[in-house]
Amino acid sequence: MAGGDRLWGGGYDEATHPLVQRLNASVHFDSELAREDLIGSVAHATMLHEQGLLSQADLGAIIDGLRAIAADIEAGSFDWQVEREDVHMNIEAALRDRIGEPAGRLHTARSRNDQVALDERLWMRRRLADIAAGLLALIETLAEQAALHHDWAMCGYTHLQRAQPVTVGHHLLAHGEGLERDLDRVLDVLARMDVCPLGAGALAGTTLAIDRDRVATLLGFSRPARNSLDAVSDRDHLVEAMAAAALGMTHLSRIGEELCLWSSAEFGYVRIPDAFTTGSSLMPQKKNPDMAELIRGKVGRVTGDLVSLLVTLKGLPMAYNKDLQEDKEPLIDALATWSDCLALLVDMMAALKWQRAALSEALDAGFLLATDLVDALVSHDLPFRQAHEKIAALVADLAKQGQTFESLGADALAARLGLPVAAVTAAIDVDIALRRRDIIGAPHPDRVAAEAAAVRLRTKAYEERISAHRQPSQAETILLNK
Amino acid sequence: MAGGDRLWGGGYDEATHPLVQRLNASVHFDSELAREDLIGSVAHATMLHEQGLLSQADLGAIIDGLRAIAADIEAGSFDWQVEREDVHMNIEAALRDRIGEPAGRLHTARSRNDQVALDERLWMRRRLADIAAGLLALIETLAEQAALHHDWAMCGYTHLQRAQPVTVGHHLLAHGEGLERDLDRVLDVLARMDVCPLGAGALAGTTLAIDRDRVATLLGFSRPARNSLDAVSDRDHLVEAMAAAALGMTHLSRIGEELCLWSSAEFGYVRIPDAFTTGSSLMPQKKNPDMAELIRGKVGRVTGDLVSLLVTLKGLPMAYNKDLQEDKEPLIDALATWSDCLALLVDMMAALKWQRAALSEALDAGFLLATDLVDALVSHDLPFRQAHEKIAALVADLAKQGQTFESLGADALAARLGLPVAAVTAAIDVDIALRRRDIIGAPHPDRVAAEAAAVRLRTKAYEERISAHRQPSQAETILLNK
Amino acid sequence: MAGGDRLWGGGYDEATHPLVQRLNASVHFDSELAREDLIGSVAHATMLHEQGLLSQADLGAIIDGLRAIAADIEAGSFDWQVEREDVHMNIEAALRDRIGEPAGRLHTARSRNDQVALDERLWMRRRLADIAAGLLALIETLAEQAALHHDWAMCGYTHLQRAQPVTVGHHLLAHGEGLERDLDRVLDVLARMDVCPLGAGALAGTTLAIDRDRVATLLGFSRPARNSLDAVSDRDHLVEAMAAAALGMTHLSRIGEELCLWSSAEFGYVRIPDAFTTGSSLMPQKKNPDMAELIRGKVGRVTGDLVSLLVTLKGLPMAYNKDLQEDKEPLIDALATWSDCLALLVDMMAALKWQRAALSEALDAGFLLATDLVDALVSHDLPFRQAHEKIAALVADLAKQGQTFESLGADALAARLGLPVAAVTAAIDVDIALRRRDIIGAPHPDRVAAEAAAVRLRTKAYEERISAHRQPSQAETILLNK
Amino acid sequence: MAGGDRLWGGGYDEATHPLVQRLNASVHFDSELAREDLIGSVAHATMLHEQGLLSQADLGAIIDGLRAIAADIEAGSFDWQVEREDVHMNIEAALRDRIGEPAGRLHTARSRNDQVALDERLWMRRRLADIAAGLLALIETLAEQAALHHDWAMCGYTHLQRAQPVTVGHHLLAHGEGLERDLDRVLDVLARMDVCPLGAGALAGTTLAIDRDRVATLLGFSRPARNSLDAVSDRDHLVEAMAAAALGMTHLSRIGEELCLWSSAEFGYVRIPDAFTTGSSLMPQKKNPDMAELIRGKVGRVTGDLVSLLVTLKGLPMAYNKDLQEDKEPLIDALATWSDCLALLVDMMAALKWQRAALSEALDAGFLLATDLVDALVSHDLPFRQAHEKIAALVADLAKQGQTFESLGADALAARLGLPVAAVTAAIDVDIALRRRDIIGAPHPDRVAAEAAAVRLRTKAYEERISAHRQPSQAETILLNK
Repeated sequence: MAGGDRLWGGGYDEATHPLVQRLNASVHFDSELAREDLIGSVAHATMLHEQGLLSQADLGAIIDGLRAIAADIEAGSFDWQVEREDVHMNIEAALRDRIGEPAGRLHTARSRNDQVALDERLWMRRRLADIAAGLLALIETLAEQAALHHDWAMCGYTHLQRAQPVTVGHHLLAHGEGLERDLDRVLDVLARMDVCPLGAGALAGTTLAIDRDRVATLLGFSRPARNSLDAVSDRDHLVEAMAAAALGMTHLSRIGEELCLWSSAEFGYVRIPDAFTTGSSLMPQKKNPDMAELIRGKVGRVTGDLVSLLVTLKGLPMAYNKDLQEDKEPLIDALATWSDCLALLVDMMAALKWQRAALSEALDAGFLLATDLVDALVSHDLPFRQAHEKIAALVADLAKQGQTFESLGADALAARLGLPVAAVTAAIDVDIALRRRDIIGAPHPDRVAAEAAAVRLRTKAYEERISAHRQPSQAETILLNK
Repeated sequence: MAGGDRLWGGGYDEATHPLVQRLNASVHFDSELAREDLIGSVAHATMLHEQGLLSQADLGAIIDGLRAIAADIEAGSFDWQVEREDVHMNIEAALRDRIGEPAGRLHTARSRNDQVALDERLWMRRRLADIAAGLLALIETLAEQAALHHDWAMCGYTHLQRAQPVTVGHHLLAHGEGLERDLDRVLDVLARMDVCPLGAGALAGTTLAIDRDRVATLLGFSRPARNSLDAVSDRDHLVEAMAAAALGMTHLSRIGEELCLWSSAEFGYVRIPDAFTTGSSLMPQKKNPDMAELIRGKVGRVTGDLVSLLVTLKGLPMAYNKDLQEDKEPLIDALATWSDCLALLVDMMAALKWQRAALSEALDAGFLLATDLVDALVSHDLPFRQAHEKIAALVADLAKQGQTFESLGADALAARLGLPVAAVTAAIDVDIALRRRDIIGAPHPDRVAAEAAAVRLRTKAYEERISAHRQPSQAETILLNK
Repeated sequence: MAGGDRLWGGGYDEATHPLVQRLNASVHFDSELAREDLIGSVAHATMLHEQGLLSQADLGAIIDGLRAIAADIEAGSFDWQVEREDVHMNIEAALRDRIGEPAGRLHTARSRNDQVALDERLWMRRRLADIAAGLLALIETLAEQAALHHDWAMCGYTHLQRAQPVTVGHHLLAHGEGLERDLDRVLDVLARMDVCPLGAGALAGTTLAIDRDRVATLLGFSRPARNSLDAVSDRDHLVEAMAAAALGMTHLSRIGEELCLWSSAEFGYVRIPDAFTTGSSLMPQKKNPDMAELIRGKVGRVTGDLVSLLVTLKGLPMAYNKDLQEDKEPLIDALATWSDCLALLVDMMAALKWQRAALSEALDAGFLLATDLVDALVSHDLPFRQAHEKIAALVADLAKQGQTFESLGADALAARLGLPVAAVTAAIDVDIALRRRDIIGAPHPDRVAAEAAAVRLRTKAYEERISAHRQPSQAETILLNK
Repeated sequence: MAGGDRLWGGGYDEATHPLVQRLNASVHFDSELAREDLIGSVAHATMLHEQGLLSQADLGAIIDGLRAIAADIEAGSFDWQVEREDVHMNIEAALRDRIGEPAGRLHTARSRNDQVALDERLWMRRRLADIAAGLLALIETLAEQAALHHDWAMCGYTHLQRAQPVTVGHHLLAHGEGLERDLDRVLDVLARMDVCPLGAGALAGTTLAIDRDRVATLLGFSRPARNSLDAVSDRDHLVEAMAAAALGMTHLSRIGEELCLWSSAEFGYVRIPDAFTTGSSLMPQKKNPDMAELIRGKVGRVTGDLVSLLVTLKGLPMAYNKDLQEDKEPLIDALATWSDCLALLVDMMAALKWQRAALSEALDAGFLLATDLVDALVSHDLPFRQAHEKIAALVADLAKQGQTFESLGADALAARLGLPVAAVTAAIDVDIALRRRDIIGAPHPDRVAAEAAAVRLRTKAYEERISAHRQPSQAETILLNK
């Protein structure tokens, strides 16, 4: 291949090594950014014209050409060429094929370095807003289910050992809290990355009289980036989004683990509808919770994606280095994975069949309310530590005799502990016990119901914040509407 | 060891396995949280008294005891005991040793699960505020140095190849941008974690009539946590802080790499003062940039710390699991490393000796201003792509002949390119070239100076935000002032 | 501090910055390598003397001094000084304090770069041999338990759903297979790292006539390193050992997870003796499987340690860079963690109380033998896919009616499937079903017993291979025996 | 979709959720294993026939069908269907479409669990053997270049500071050492994974009378796996291969970093031919070392791949869990990346133009031979530490005066140091200095040449070991030759 076929090839006599082309090319993944590349070019060309750097005729030809390319891509008929390296050069070359010389003016005062930095930001803005919406949908689903099951008592666990009673609703809302923090993090990334890199050039701006504020406005950014070197080499928002994704997927992995536990024969707390399970190629009786397992397992790839970019960024000097090309695949993979898992969980959590009998049965076994007896003693002025020791010894004793609080009975318990019978009776009844947990954040059924309602109020505010990031920019509007 | 020596041992007949004690104990690292544990106990006891759950006399004894313990710890005379497992049990047992029975009432309506969750938040609030201050100090130092070197021209690099001229000040401000994002991230974590977990109990709150709002206020939190299960198992803020640390250290690793490059014989751009280098045990001539290397290398441990916690959290069911004990060591290590590296860089960057001669010499070699010639052609209406090809061919040609723009001369260049001599003269002079880069974010010396000043304005606002997180809480004030 | 107090300080006028000393110093963790440093010095001095580079008298003084230092360290009375930076300089300076001038000859033809590379290898050889022994002990314990429980039927799981019957012994041996691969990996690392770096100097050997073969022999290595640049910068064996540790701990995390599941109220398959559980500070009835959880959780730190070193090594040019100082903490942490967890598991797995009743009960529920009915149909010439579909439909049908194979009965099943009654009877009896799995690797009780015996034969060969790495070297013998 | 279209769907009434199909399907990446799946089926069918479980006619039909499918896949005309989930079900269903009922007998005594475990091993064996060959080629290339440049003196560096003289050949061989360890590791993985999982069934073998030894032989494995639970859940070889890849890529990242440094204007040690560089879209003078940067940057993705699988495996109970489906993408990515980078480096290292003038120029500046003067003093019986201090002070003094050893001259130096002039003359001449480094592993040109020759002898033995892993198995031969 002679120099001239490569857009940067003016100084080259020699052909490129075949493996170089293969490793260098990125169009097989960065074509994902095509729409953003077109939008960015619309904004850039519009500003060039306004600044007198591009004629009205050339601008018209360019916009028409970009619209036609957008249509081709949309229709799946665009001819992506690996020898044109990346999405930017593919589109520029296609524009040249289509409109000729004016295409050569589009790259005026622009480098691939600021162009790719822009495209990534536009793409991320769109994807992160989708993920925010996915998080919100899951938070709402959990709140709805929590409202429906606000008074379904279940064992609360620590160390996977039955600990104290909670309710299904309380448990679901606990997951909602983590998801709400995830959502806040996504919104923080969106706010922090709201900066337009275009105009930074390769690394040092340009000598041409461009208007960076205008481009930022056309693209819906709050302001241009403040430093050209930083603008072309900054990948903070990718790391931050992937860190949020890794933590978000960690949350989902915990839900996945619980679904595996709860749907096992041993727990039996939920039935996962057939639509969310798959069978075995060998064992005909199996209905496996594959989706719960995948949601649990996929935290691996997202954590790996995060590590991948951190390793690549380590120790890079200013400004742009080719290593940065490695940023896109993990980003795309991480956000797609998170998004898919959220969408799946929204439907699966809504469809879950909670098994009230199994939940109740588990509550009856064991000494789930031992802490309530401690509290009863404390209420009768025994120091906490002594009360704890007294009940611990009682439990050990009963366990050796194969007895439970229930089998011993409130009267005998009261006598043994020196407590009024009424205090003991109240302490060892699950429903009463739940209703005595009447402080902020505790599983009292009425509090759970109220909190589920409060979540749904908060989601309104989130909806507005998310939709603000989804408004099409002026440049996008120009591209889409002839 | 009989059951009674372990505070949870009431139901145990059997001694604990020696290795269990070793793996279980955490006091060798969680004693770092002693001050926070004491502050938390002051708040909890105060509220218990106000709610009628603790007598005035007992409260007085407890507060006095906690103050005495604080003094012992401060003085280094506190007797940490590994068999007492962790910081919480060490302090509770020491209190019992000191004041007797009332100590047994302090754990009323409190579990180690919510206690450790509280201590971590208090500790992180203090450490993150310190780190925010460290970031701010480095941003200010860079801005000061940028102001001093706002017009020192230097080669800007992409791909570690000389690319276009920038200034030392512009380069330093580029790093400042990343650090300012780091600072924003730290402030975001501080805001998001401003929630008090105390009162969540082991996992399900308590039946006793505690006042969670009051405790939150005493400890300087905005509100109590909304869900008890989440409150004891949430480690999001740790992950988020460590992710911020990993990215922050990645930024520092890039500065470290540049200091290694710049202080090499080959670049010679800076001299690192002796106070920041070390010698060789074998080679007497060596002055090695060890600190720059360590700053570069330590991103490894912080990235590892982040991965460590993400792996540990993966797939844990609700609520507290012992795995969570593994959260503290990576957290402490990550924040200490970040903090130390920031403090060191503040002094090292201020002390750096920029070598103007070496910086200038590098500017003269090569074709650093080829892009400016392209822009000159574009200004004379050649389409960008044709201009780029024309200059690329010219550079290739000159390089073969061992010529430079300077050696060829402006007249000959102008003739060859069909440009006015004045346009060429302006394009191939570094100082003029810098001053023609007169757009937002570009390295024009006046813009660099202005941006350095702007940074110092922004730091004022940051200072106030940081100091808001450093106000002692009411509980801390009670502990410290008799 | 003037230059002269630092062993490399001859060319320095200026004092070192206080934070430099703090970040530079490594003695707080590399003192762990003290014994190896002394052994290396014995070998080096002995060779120097044999080559005529050190007098007999000086050698004698040095060896005596090193022995005295070894005794001090052993007794805990050695005065480690942070301002002497690292273990090497502390020992060299202590030797100088003790024997004067001859100490200054010990560093002849040696650099800290090859010295630290040596110490790490000697230390790793010792620690890895310990870990190999720990792995072997756990393999043996599992084989013993497998022999004892070779015919205890239990549910085998896929997707945490009951799948087909296996035996407790079979399950335990499955974990043994992974541990045996871990052991093979450790032995591979030991073999590959059996190379002596001493004599590589700082990076380029020395002009003095040392004998590297002799030093290698004195230290028990197979050969000297072949390239001096590689010898001082190679950290492959650390990465390889930590990768083995991360995988090894992943294996243990899976055992830890199973112990948590099995000891839960829902499974009830094992009782973990009190010596391996701990109680709750709040809930008096709790006996938590903390050790199983910690073993599961600690895979995080070891994975983090591995990542830490990989990140640090990334992109370092030849040869030694200070970044490499970051190699020791993760190494020490990873190997200590692995070693402790192995030792704990050896005792815990031996002490585990398997609950035969709970194991049996689980076997009876569900359609665990559906695959056996498929096989029965296949044995009567139905194509597998048709047989699979037929039984899948049958199971679905029975489940809807609340029936099981047992409740329906062999006669009715046989009629419905068109099979002889005997074939059905054999297919739906767990004990018969296990004994029909009579192929290599299957859970037939006799095969399990035979395999447990085979494991114990293989361990003999491993014992010899491990002990070969534990022979004291000649240099160690010189140091230890006056 | 009704149950019947899914091969496991016999017990299902309900359709699968659309997102389940999307997340569950793996055919878009596991079709990479198609050839191995076909080979495995050939072996399995052959054994089934030999054991009387499959008629001659059915075997013939199956083999013919598999051959036809192999041809379709080879020709790119195979119709991969996402609703058939994975490579196994696609091939089984295509076989059914093609030959009808006998296809239903192929899955007899086989599960997807042992099938996928087999396919992965066969695929890895092939890919790892390719990588071993790639490593060997690079080792040979480096040895050839080392032989050609065995006496080209260059600066050796520590801390990126000029330290002592080495030769280009010595430096290249240093990298070769690491690559040889990589090769050993790959061969270790190949040896350790040489175990056939087929016959393990879903988790517990089968009741049918299969012959696992025979299948292992047909597929070229040394033995069948010893435990069915382990056989279907073991992913050790993947982790081990990816850990080897992460370390191997770390080695390449260090070469990449050096190529970036060496090809910079500041070093100028090498010229990278145009075929391995690319230009800038904006700056016409640029020839960027993109390939060196990508090789450096791609260590990120491979480290991420390793972390990804470790995270996924963490805490999984026995035996197969769906999470394991996440194992293939990182594996495929890691091995492909390593393979491509090796192939590229083979050609690039062979084509590199070393710049002797620049190498020499760097040697002349500085005090590169200060250590040689120390050694000279030591040879005249000064204790090393005193000699080191003396030369350190001398260097500091000369540096202040702007002098070098050469400018001062041997006579004056000798007088100042109290050494014979000849000793000083020999010490400060680079070529003599190199030839005085005449010990094992040092950069004496003759030793470098000899070591380069020795490498090429060792490669012969490696070639044979690698080719042993590349022999087609009997099953592969059956598939390929009618």
